Amino acid sequence: MASSMKSFVDVAPGSQFPIQNLPFGVFRPSSGATPRPGVAIGDSVVDLSVLSDAGLFSGPLLSNSTCFSQTSLNAFMALGRPAWKEARVTLQKLLSADEPTLRDNDELRSKAIIPMSKVKMEMPAVIGDYTDFFSSKEHATNTGTIFRSKELALPANWLHVPIGYHGRASSVVISGTDIRRPRGQTAPPDGKKSPEFKPSAVLDFELEMAVFAGPGNELGTTVSVDDAPNHIFGFVIMNDWSARDIQKWEYVPLGPFLGKSFGTTISPWIVTLEALEPFICDAPVQDPPALPYLTEKKRFTYDIPLQVAISPEGESKASVICNSNFKYLYWTVCQQLAHHTSNGCNLNPGDLLASGTISGPDSGSMGSLLEQSWAGSKEIKLEHGGIRKFLKDGDKVIMTAVCQGDGFCVGFGECSGKILPALPM
Amino acid sequence: MASSMKSFVDVAPGSQFPIQNLPFGVFRPSSGATPRPGVAIGDSVVDLSVLSDAGLFSGPLLSNSTCFSQTSLNAFMALGRPAWKEARVTLQKLLSADEPTLRDNDELRSKAIIPMSKVKMEMPAVIGDYTDFFSSKEHATNTGTIFRSKELALPANWLHVPIGYHGRASSVVISGTDIRRPRGQTAPPDGKKSPEFKPSAVLDFELEMAVFAGPGNELGTTVSVDDAPNHIFGFVIMNDWSARDIQKWEYVPLGPFLGKSFGTTISPWIVTLEALEPFICDAPVQDPPALPYLTEKKRFTYDIPLQVAISPEGESKASVICNSNFKYLYWTVCQQLAHHTSNGCNLNPGDLLASGTISGPDSGSMGSLLEQSWAGSKEIKLEHGGIRKFLKDGDKVIMTAVCQGDGFCVGFGECSGKILPALPM
Repeated sequence: MASSMKSFVDVAPGSQFPIQNLPFGVFRPSSGATPRPGVAIGDSVVDLSVLSDAGLFSGPLLSNSTCFSQTSLNAFMALGRPAWKEARVTLQKLLSADEPTLRDNDELRSKAIIPMSKVKMEMPAVIGDYTDFFSSKEHATNTGTIFRSKELALPANWLHVPIGYHGRASSVVISGTDIRRPRGQTAPPDGKKSPEFKPSAVLDFELEMAVFAGPGNELGTTVSVDDAPNHIFGFVIMNDWSARDIQKWEYVPLGPFLGKSFGTTISPWIVTLEALEPFICDAPVQDPPALPYLTEKKRFTYDIPLQVAISPEGESKASVICNSNFKYLYWTVCQQLAHHTSNGCNLNPGDLLASGTISGPDSGSMGSLLEQSWAGSKEIKLEHGGIRKFLKDGDKVIMTAVCQGDGFCVGFGECSGKILPALPM
Repeated sequence: MASSMKSFVDVAPGSQFPIQNLPFGVFRPSSGATPRPGVAIGDSVVDLSVLSDAGLFSGPLLSNSTCFSQTSLNAFMALGRPAWKEARVTLQKLLSADEPTLRDNDELRSKAIIPMSKVKMEMPAVIGDYTDFFSSKEHATNTGTIFRSKELALPANWLHVPIGYHGRASSVVISGTDIRRPRGQTAPPDGKKSPEFKPSAVLDFELEMAVFAGPGNELGTTVSVDDAPNHIFGFVIMNDWSARDIQKWEYVPLGPFLGKSFGTTISPWIVTLEALEPFICDAPVQDPPALPYLTEKKRFTYDIPLQVAISPEGESKASVICNSNFKYLYWTVCQQLAHHTSNGCNLNPGDLLASGTISGPDSGSMGSLLEQSWAGSKEIKLEHGGIRKFLKDGDKVIMTAVCQGDGFCVGFGECSGKILPALPM
């Protein structure tokens, strides 16, 4: 996609959604309306159901499809990469500055192109299963050092296995959804025998990215690491909210459960691998080398700068507290997906695979408060006032991701959520 | 339900499916037909879509519902206990020996009542999320003793927390589905540095039961332990197939993943709480007492005898290797459900909550080969020939559950699956 390509739709300089991006999402044009698929461009949303009804997806794979008349993107995700590419090519042509079909049809254009400020974003897919990985060596080392010691930081399997676990799909919510501080069981206080049940006192965010899977594989079959990109529709930003006190008490021996399942937030726009192509870069060298089933013919990842900010209740300015990057991850998304299916486990269109917390090499790039406050032993100063070790009620956590291209940006919008007080005891 | 109640449908003495049971499932009357809800009675299946179309669900909650015209039971599960009871009362009346409506209408009866031998059972619900608990004290103690020591067998949290974790929903399959032996990463062999990737050499079953949830709760709300029965549609038998070598290498620190996600089998008929009422019994006394949010006003469980048999390839007789009972579980299903939602996690209709392996006090009641062979240190003799430590290719594992009532049985049918050889390396 040439950086010089322009759309007839207004796209402000520095917009996250130029014609080079075209991320997919699901939206309601008004509060009572049925959800439908759309793409973002500039400050507008293109209603794909309208374009589809008008017969404008005329390519061989989409002309007879009803995938854009659905209330989720699952059916589109099931079609696979050739159909995803066909949709992108069609949309880039329809939206380009020199293409009259939509530009010069006032009635159709006003129906199909809606100001983003007027729409309500919904979950882009029905998530059948959500898996969370643990792919940042820096994050694994930091948490291992905090909970064990520097010498025993990485578990014995970590450099060989892209560690992952099943998360809770039902509580994955769209950006902007408030998150209620969970109550839960925590370890007995010093000197006591009985554990407590109370609101979490150690509430945290985790900066992650996640991919939506499609078209999937049958149970008993595998996806090779080199075929993995054909099973990845695109990326979103994810906040894996975590109650550290609940998590710490419950996670032996079967892993995190209620410390995570009270809410997980994703950004609404799914940025495709096609839009991310200009940002392909080398992934970290692996030592020891990965086993053959995890060894990529051409190893790569994406340069996606990530930022986390906290906006306390009543404070108009958000304080940036983390700058990280997707490219730091030791295990790539292709390795995660190949590992996930290596035992024959089936993926379905709309399944969500998350990266795990993305921490970088320096303290400003740590992707959680657990790491930034070193388990509460250090205070974190917010640039616009206030001090945090963990999240307070009313805090809004805002995650963003913007790739800097040659003359354009490819952004992910916002993944945000505000902490509500716990239910009364 | 009086034990003397009889149906006009043939029910052989000792049948698992008398009119006192009426478990719900989803079936195809012929291979090309659309799946639809049914109940089992004797050796027959009653097609609920036919009864619904004929206007026979005339009660206030179901007369305008389309729940029996769906391909899954999710919509029915969403309606809640009053509707479930109404359906049961309607069906017991329609099927009773002295009720002419269906009995004397040859055309309708032959359409609605189909020999079980002719139907194909399907998954009863679309499972949004599947959670597996770890609620047998005997199982937790056995595995803890095997992997650590007798003194350190139970983790510090075990007597306080109904430990659970998220399982893989996509690979839950219906009884009769073959299970392919998984390949996976296992720990470095003695003296080596590098792990291996190979077919699991330590394949096991886990005897469990599971409940389907309905109608569910909103994110951020909880279900109290005493209200939990209103959120449980009914029970199935479950086999949580486990690859012990893969599990052992991967599970630190985030829990089981690929050692489990290659397949989980459930029995097709969901036995309701109403059908299980005659089998209510005391649950084990808890010491220390549970925290208040887990303390039941009236603590109870169900007396459900369970059996596991292995039928090797080419062997016509199955050898029983385990006799256990649901009533042994330390944490009740009400405690599991209340704990699950205690942080505000939302349950949806069709979610599956499994018990964890159900082991009893003696070696004949251990619900896995890991325990029965004590991690492979003992041989298990099959009564009809053969020796096992873990499962061989071609082995069929058959789990059954039959409650003995006063003059009738309430059974669950069969939860079975056969092991296929691993994919070639």
